[in-house]
Amino acid sequence: MRDINQFTITEAVKASFKTAEGSRLKFLLEAFIDHLHDYTREVNLTHDEWIGVLNFLYDCGQISTPERHEFILLSDVLGFSALVDMINTRGGATEGSNLGPFYLDDAPRMALGGDLGRGRDGAVLLVQGQVRDTLGNPIPGAVIDTWQADAAGTYPIQEQASGQDKFDLRAIITANDKGEYWYTTVLPKPYTVPYDGPVGRLLRAGQRHSWRASHLHYIIRAEGYRAITTEMFFEATEYLDNDAVFGVRRSLVTKLETVKKTDTLPPTDKKPDAKCAFDFVLAPAG
Amino acid sequence: MRDINQFTITEAVKASFKTAEGSRLKFLLEAFIDHLHDYTREVNLTHDEWIGVLNFLYDCGQISTPERHEFILLSDVLGFSALVDMINTRGGATEGSNLGPFYLDDAPRMALGGDLGRGRDGAVLLVQGQVRDTLGNPIPGAVIDTWQADAAGTYPIQEQASGQDKFDLRAIITANDKGEYWYTTVLPKPYTVPYDGPVGRLLRAGQRHSWRASHLHYIIRAEGYRAITTEMFFEATEYLDNDAVFGVRRSLVTKLETVKKTDTLPPTDKKPDAKCAFDFVLAPAG
Repeated sequence: MRDINQFTITEAVKASFKTAEGSRLKFLLEAFIDHLHDYTREVNLTHDEWIGVLNFLYDCGQISTPERHEFILLSDVLGFSALVDMINTRGGATEGSNLGPFYLDDAPRMALGGDLGRGRDGAVLLVQGQVRDTLGNPIPGAVIDTWQADAAGTYPIQEQASGQDKFDLRAIITANDKGEYWYTTVLPKPYTVPYDGPVGRLLRAGQRHSWRASHLHYIIRAEGYRAITTEMFFEATEYLDNDAVFGVRRSLVTKLETVKKTDTLPPTDKKPDAKCAFDFVLAPAG
Repeated sequence: MRDINQFTITEAVKASFKTAEGSRLKFLLEAFIDHLHDYTREVNLTHDEWIGVLNFLYDCGQISTPERHEFILLSDVLGFSALVDMINTRGGATEGSNLGPFYLDDAPRMALGGDLGRGRDGAVLLVQGQVRDTLGNPIPGAVIDTWQADAAGTYPIQEQASGQDKFDLRAIITANDKGEYWYTTVLPKPYTVPYDGPVGRLLRAGQRHSWRASHLHYIIRAEGYRAITTEMFFEATEYLDNDAVFGVRRSLVTKLETVKKTDTLPPTDKKPDAKCAFDFVLAPAG
């Protein structure tokens, strides 16, 4: 290997990994090494640029905490997350969208009709719909894991210093025997992705804004079905066509309607001012 | 942008960066986004694999400190560093090789003939040579920045807890008016790159060893010349053909010889047991 040069090194690096022939790991590693080396040769990367990239990753690591995953944010603004969501959406199922950097898997349980807003200021929004399979059958007991920003565009886990409860605006809700779910919450506002770190520097270098369209986050799970991670957006709100993380899909945009006295609504702890409806469709697992 | 799909998203992400037309940043970013998205589509990356990659980077960040740059190590074991060294080597100049994760830019100055080993156990090695330009002319006053492991294969900056001085085994030496340099040191041993972190996990997953061939690190600088970062290796030592970071080049391997009584040697503070010779060649800057 002492005779390697810029053209033969790629095969030498691939050969150094003794991963099992035909394994997924071998396939993923070899394709990655090919792309990394091809990129380096194509752009004739300089030492300054090389260390610049590595120090950028170092900085992303330094600002990351269990509550802030700068690498997910980086993936988001490069459309990497959105692309993975797209290629993993199954035909007929709800389209996937960003997990984002603020998901924690320990949300408290909430009953149907409960209020996620927990007395927060802002318009009270009723969110309702059904979880179905790709043949149109309801999925009884489907599990809805949701999290969102508040009416100021902030996630409680970002604001613990100011006394917000990190369990606020997060809940796990179980659909009824017809696959139906409903709850109230506050209508979230658009917000900027965190731009005080290295990813913010990248956005500024690219003269990009850091705003996200208003959205609610969801992971929908049901036994025997492929879980989906997605987001719900609202018609006629800002940034639908230039969301900073490429999360918006036409099929994920729902309509906000004012609640009228004549509306028949499901029972809720809190009286809603507005409503929206969104059905989730899951494809079979495997 | 709400109509993007897995094929159109790449152009949408590139268009979101408003970097100056024709700029290097635009070129580097666009080629990177192309490769990242092509890779994702080619391998059909799953969500588990996607978050696995991002959590791997997160872990690299968590273990990194000013004295340990896990991203440089990652670059090293993927041959990324070596490739950048190769494509930036100028015709006729000494080939570049790994900077590695242990370089610090504050080494103390040492006079010609000084002992870098500072009384450490191990064979005393005389290293001598000349710094020249690509036309063969000596470069008076060229600056030699060197750092290395000890005879146990350890860098002092790794071992401050055990009382080693972080300035040990590092020095900046100025060549004389004929471009000549010489000093004594201890012969370093092969060592393993740090494998207690995420990069170690990657090496184990790939059934790769983590040993480096014995080497001395150098950055050679002189006004008007392009600085080179390189390493010196020794004939007939281990791992020359399977160095963990792809650092070895045939032209960087020198011969260790036992010092004979009849040898004429330059004046040194310490009497050497062995000697080696290596000339550095710098190309003009720009």
